[in-house]
Amino acid sequence: MRHLLSTRDLTRDQAIHILDVAEDMADVQTREVKKLPTLRGKTVVNLFFEDSTRTRISFEAAAKRLSADVITFSAKGSSVSKGESLKDTAQTLAAMGADGVVIRHHASGAPQVLAQSDWIDAGVVNAGDGTHEHPTQALLDAFTMRRRLHPGSSRGKDLDGVRVVIVGDILHSRVARSNLWLLRTLGAEVTFVAPATLVPFGVGSWPAAVSFDLDETLRSIRPDVLMMLRIQSERMNAAYFPNAREYARQWGLDDERLTALGPDSIVMHPGPMNRGLEISAAAADSAQSTVLEQVANGVSIRMAVLYLLLSGEREALA
Amino acid sequence: MRHLLSTRDLTRDQAIHILDVAEDMADVQTREVKKLPTLRGKTVVNLFFEDSTRTRISFEAAAKRLSADVITFSAKGSSVSKGESLKDTAQTLAAMGADGVVIRHHASGAPQVLAQSDWIDAGVVNAGDGTHEHPTQALLDAFTMRRRLHPGSSRGKDLDGVRVVIVGDILHSRVARSNLWLLRTLGAEVTFVAPATLVPFGVGSWPAAVSFDLDETLRSIRPDVLMMLRIQSERMNAAYFPNAREYARQWGLDDERLTALGPDSIVMHPGPMNRGLEISAAAADSAQSTVLEQVANGVSIRMAVLYLLLSGEREALA
Amino acid sequence: MRHLLSTRDLTRDQAIHILDVAEDMADVQTREVKKLPTLRGKTVVNLFFEDSTRTRISFEAAAKRLSADVITFSAKGSSVSKGESLKDTAQTLAAMGADGVVIRHHASGAPQVLAQSDWIDAGVVNAGDGTHEHPTQALLDAFTMRRRLHPGSSRGKDLDGVRVVIVGDILHSRVARSNLWLLRTLGAEVTFVAPATLVPFGVGSWPAAVSFDLDETLRSIRPDVLMMLRIQSERMNAAYFPNAREYARQWGLDDERLTALGPDSIVMHPGPMNRGLEISAAAADSAQSTVLEQVANGVSIRMAVLYLLLSGEREALA
Repeated sequence: MRHLLSTRDLTRDQAIHILDVAEDMADVQTREVKKLPTLRGKTVVNLFFEDSTRTRISFEAAAKRLSADVITFSAKGSSVSKGESLKDTAQTLAAMGADGVVIRHHASGAPQVLAQSDWIDAGVVNAGDGTHEHPTQALLDAFTMRRRLHPGSSRGKDLDGVRVVIVGDILHSRVARSNLWLLRTLGAEVTFVAPATLVPFGVGSWPAAVSFDLDETLRSIRPDVLMMLRIQSERMNAAYFPNAREYARQWGLDDERLTALGPDSIVMHPGPMNRGLEISAAAADSAQSTVLEQVANGVSIRMAVLYLLLSGEREALA
Repeated sequence: MRHLLSTRDLTRDQAIHILDVAEDMADVQTREVKKLPTLRGKTVVNLFFEDSTRTRISFEAAAKRLSADVITFSAKGSSVSKGESLKDTAQTLAAMGADGVVIRHHASGAPQVLAQSDWIDAGVVNAGDGTHEHPTQALLDAFTMRRRLHPGSSRGKDLDGVRVVIVGDILHSRVARSNLWLLRTLGAEVTFVAPATLVPFGVGSWPAAVSFDLDETLRSIRPDVLMMLRIQSERMNAAYFPNAREYARQWGLDDERLTALGPDSIVMHPGPMNRGLEISAAAADSAQSTVLEQVANGVSIRMAVLYLLLSGEREALA
Repeated sequence: MRHLLSTRDLTRDQAIHILDVAEDMADVQTREVKKLPTLRGKTVVNLFFEDSTRTRISFEAAAKRLSADVITFSAKGSSVSKGESLKDTAQTLAAMGADGVVIRHHASGAPQVLAQSDWIDAGVVNAGDGTHEHPTQALLDAFTMRRRLHPGSSRGKDLDGVRVVIVGDILHSRVARSNLWLLRTLGAEVTFVAPATLVPFGVGSWPAAVSFDLDETLRSIRPDVLMMLRIQSERMNAAYFPNAREYARQWGLDDERLTALGPDSIVMHPGPMNRGLEISAAAADSAQSTVLEQVANGVSIRMAVLYLLLSGEREALA
């Protein structure tokens, strides 16, 4: 693996391999010294064209626990805001000796452009690009599902036959897209539930069922996994968006729906949550919620990805 | 010690223990390689809801000299500014494996809320909360006094009978409060001097004398320590605030008062100073001034606090 | 060497020594683990009063590859913006144990003030001060020229007789000034080419030829090195500035001039480039262009400078 740009590119074996390496990394996190010397002398650049403190510090923690040097390049106030092209930025980072570049960009496809160019030799990790993909989020979600559904023996397993329902603003969600491709590759069945105005135009050609009625979907699918997407507050006033009260009533996970879901289903959310909007406080804090496991697993997944891209030698994990 | 939230909670023995460990840390700072491997593999998060470059980089230097990984989480532009609750932020940091959280918050009590919750297992250090407390500032002040008053043999000592006068905006000062509790615990006598409008309503129940007249206080108390508080420029236009010229004339440490103070008294200031306002340039730069010792001691105190909270094994200091 | 403030202060031997140490550092960058333990336990503070992501991360990468701890002190939102003096900031950093201070400041001369004071004992590196100097840029430029002109055997060499033409806004350019002093010290001949409004008043006393006609200069000088300066967009609307189209036509390196230049001359630019303005895309990406080598060499030069200022023991490089 040279780059991680999209979950759509991953084969089943590649995906399972990443999840298995992340299991090793999760084990490291339970040690007294939760650090490996593996990437000593390597430089990871966090190239963030959009603010995202959570994602940035998750990658930063992951890189530091592999002993890499981390340099944060925030596009604000930088030469980028003076009009420097992505090409020149990339070549500059390459020249400075970046071994890995973690890129968050508002434009869909920017990480691909970076990786497929000959501008930079470094491993490129897509940390979220426009409405396109957020592959480490999907990987940490799959990792979390696998651990919950195969407790104690998740290594090597896929998600065959697992029923996943993803609820929210599918139209703008890179998390929904990355999850769809990865979940399908791992054998899961995916249903999107959303207001009609928040479903992408081409969804008919995607390998997902689509529903506009959450209650009916919960009844008929009986999902193993219910994933609530974050509502972006900046979209809440748009004409295509239901108002918050209406959204919570029809597409939010409230306490009644949590009860209807049953105790064996898990509840996921990429965070940060809008409690009382797309998810109730009780649902967020319930035993079924994996919200905090997702955050913890995020560090393990990002360690695995950086490790695989920057060293390639899993044996060194010993 | 699980957390450091307030100097009010500290017993005399605990306080002296922190000061003694800080002596060890100060010794490390004089070595060729001024670094210990003690916190290798630990992650310290600087969670700053208010800007404070000085305090942040003092904690950052302290953590790095103990070989911890440091992650800065500035609330600006983060999910916090998108309305995430302190609870969700804390749980997220916990899930990412934070071993210590250094929190600066505009709301009095926020670090207590964090520490007393079950949201996070990490050691919490209050780096200043509203007008409540700033315990590492008080500890570094006490450390500085102890070193000056017991040169060469400060270990194990308290501040019994030391006369401390603290001058300035007591009403809004967390530094004044943290100092009061710690100084009393260590046996010192504290007098506050302030304009009447800048004295807190409940000061009568505090174990401090109160005066409105600096000159009279210097004459009658003959302080061992004169601590000038910083004037916050954002308060200087408030109705309850004397104008700057009037403030300097009545409550500033000018050259005449410096002479009156006598050469055996020390002059303290938490910085950054408004030279010519609460303190004259001559006073700031005089041999009696401990302003820079306070900064240096701040790193030692913060090393001691992080060390005690995150490792607990003082023996490793060897 | 105690500080690096200006290339004007450097003797020929000092300059060549820095370039030679940078050769060693460039060798380290080709290793599997591109890191030296030399500055372990040292603290380098990046004190930036102006934004400059490129320069900051270049110094940050350099310091980290020498195993120093790096602390970034951005003046925005800091006590500096609350009116703290440079003196108090410097003394604070000294008290915290800074071994090196890399300072970028909008005021010409600020690094000198810092270094010549007794405020701070640390080595001071000027990372750009107003329109005065940017010595590490000139050093990396000289390093780049030397490597191109003496491939495989640049150690110990100077730039005797090398013909350098520097084109652009000489008036405001600290890069032009730092290059002039260093290039002259190393034996090169320098010609400035600029619009008449962008030539400094006192240029007549500088050891450089001045021309207002780029084409004529390329014909008559036949430069070994053509250095295009960056156009600062914030100046482009000033009355003394030609408009962008006029600038590109008369003083830009377009494809025709690139051809006229001949294949043995090298093309330099400090970056970030305004492609299509002061330099065409073809020129920027041509085999003659050293733009990316300059970035890579910047890390080596900054490693050399930090190493020489903070350890002084070149032997440890082994």
